[in-house]
Amino acid sequence: MKDKMTIILFSGEMDKAIAAFTLATTAASSDMDVSIFFTFWGLNILKKKKFIITKTQMLMQKMFNTMSTSSLPISKMNYFGLGPWMMKKLMKKSNMASLEDLMKLAKQLNVKYIACTTSCGVLGLTKENLTDDVNEFAGAATYLAEAKESKVNLFI
Amino acid sequence: MKDKMTIILFSGEMDKAIAAFTLATTAASSDMDVSIFFTFWGLNILKKKKFIITKTQMLMQKMFNTMSTSSLPISKMNYFGLGPWMMKKLMKKSNMASLEDLMKLAKQLNVKYIACTTSCGVLGLTKENLTDDVNEFAGAATYLAEAKESKVNLFI
Amino acid sequence: MKDKMTIILFSGEMDKAIAAFTLATTAASSDMDVSIFFTFWGLNILKKKKFIITKTQMLMQKMFNTMSTSSLPISKMNYFGLGPWMMKKLMKKSNMASLEDLMKLAKQLNVKYIACTTSCGVLGLTKENLTDDVNEFAGAATYLAEAKESKVNLFI
Repeated sequence: MKDKMTIILFSGEMDKAIAAFTLATTAASSDMDVSIFFTFWGLNILKKKKFIITKTQMLMQKMFNTMSTSSLPISKMNYFGLGPWMMKKLMKKSNMASLEDLMKLAKQLNVKYIACTTSCGVLGLTKENLTDDVNEFAGAATYLAEAKESKVNLFI
Repeated sequence: MKDKMTIILFSGEMDKAIAAFTLATTAASSDMDVSIFFTFWGLNILKKKKFIITKTQMLMQKMFNTMSTSSLPISKMNYFGLGPWMMKKLMKKSNMASLEDLMKLAKQLNVKYIACTTSCGVLGLTKENLTDDVNEFAGAATYLAEAKESKVNLFI
Repeated sequence: MKDKMTIILFSGEMDKAIAAFTLATTAASSDMDVSIFFTFWGLNILKKKKFIITKTQMLMQKMFNTMSTSSLPISKMNYFGLGPWMMKKLMKKSNMASLEDLMKLAKQLNVKYIACTTSCGVLGLTKENLTDDVNEFAGAATYLAEAKESKVNLFI
């Protein structure tokens, strides 16, 4: 049986997402089974670029849904949006993979995406709002079953 | 012997606390032993609503002690306090348990609360300031002894 | 064989660094093997006080490099720099070790420092910019090899 790693991705910032996906792809390419459980702001990373406003979404849910993969902030020195742009530039300059590249690689390496059903409910997100790369919609019990079998568990 | 989970709750935000207590109560209700080690801002979650200002507290400690369970900020889109209010509304609308509900459930399921003595010292918090639900006041050594025996360890 | 603990230190805040080093030194002094993997903003903690601006650093990298150990912010109630000063005062008053003390102790107890090569590349940091206490420059694969052997893994 393969060694497992399970990551809870709670944060919606670009820098933390890059850290999570760098770990996930490195683990998967060295033959580990990797699952990422996306909850709360982490769901921003899974949103389709063309965000479909469904009828069921209230104004409050819309206010929480202003971010998607292409416009994530960073956790420090965001400089009102200048920070993420600078970071992307610097990553390109040092030939580092972008978040989009890492996410493509993650799917090629069969990293499993689980979207937290409870958070989706609160934020008014449905299957239609998220990328088709999501493997499963599930709750904390599913996460815990995987985490108990994992050698490495992280909350990011 | 039961499987164990140990969470360090360092953050004082409502959304992170909800994530921690959702995991804790889900684990405890599926027959795991769960301990939460509250440190730094995480101690805000344990504060009594009627916060007693003890004589030993200096002005600086008071400034760090302006938050309690009923007035926690959220880690993203706080909108100067509007964010937490909106989130509570949305949670109620989608029939999700509130932080207060989850904390009541946690106690019914015997989730163990450990308050970090060192952080209490720095922030000027005494037993009188915190809820009676605290099982133990202890330091990092106690946490590590539990973490070594745990299948799932998270820092939130 | 000794029990192991591995910490990813991603955050560059004083309070989170203190939590990481309190855990690391407590573990190391109770005969555990401890490694800290410094990535992204966590590298701020390893910077030399006299920061050497190398020729290869661009303006953007300089903007990301305005913080070092002696001027770290805190994650809550930073009060534009007043927060860290108050916290240092309170820690001294309650006879708690400062971050600098904890870092000295960590080295005496052989806590291993690994600096993330990818993050160093993005932020334009070279060996000359970081303290000599760094044991190794390495990437996510090295971290994962250690994490798989560890009883306690945390992302801070």
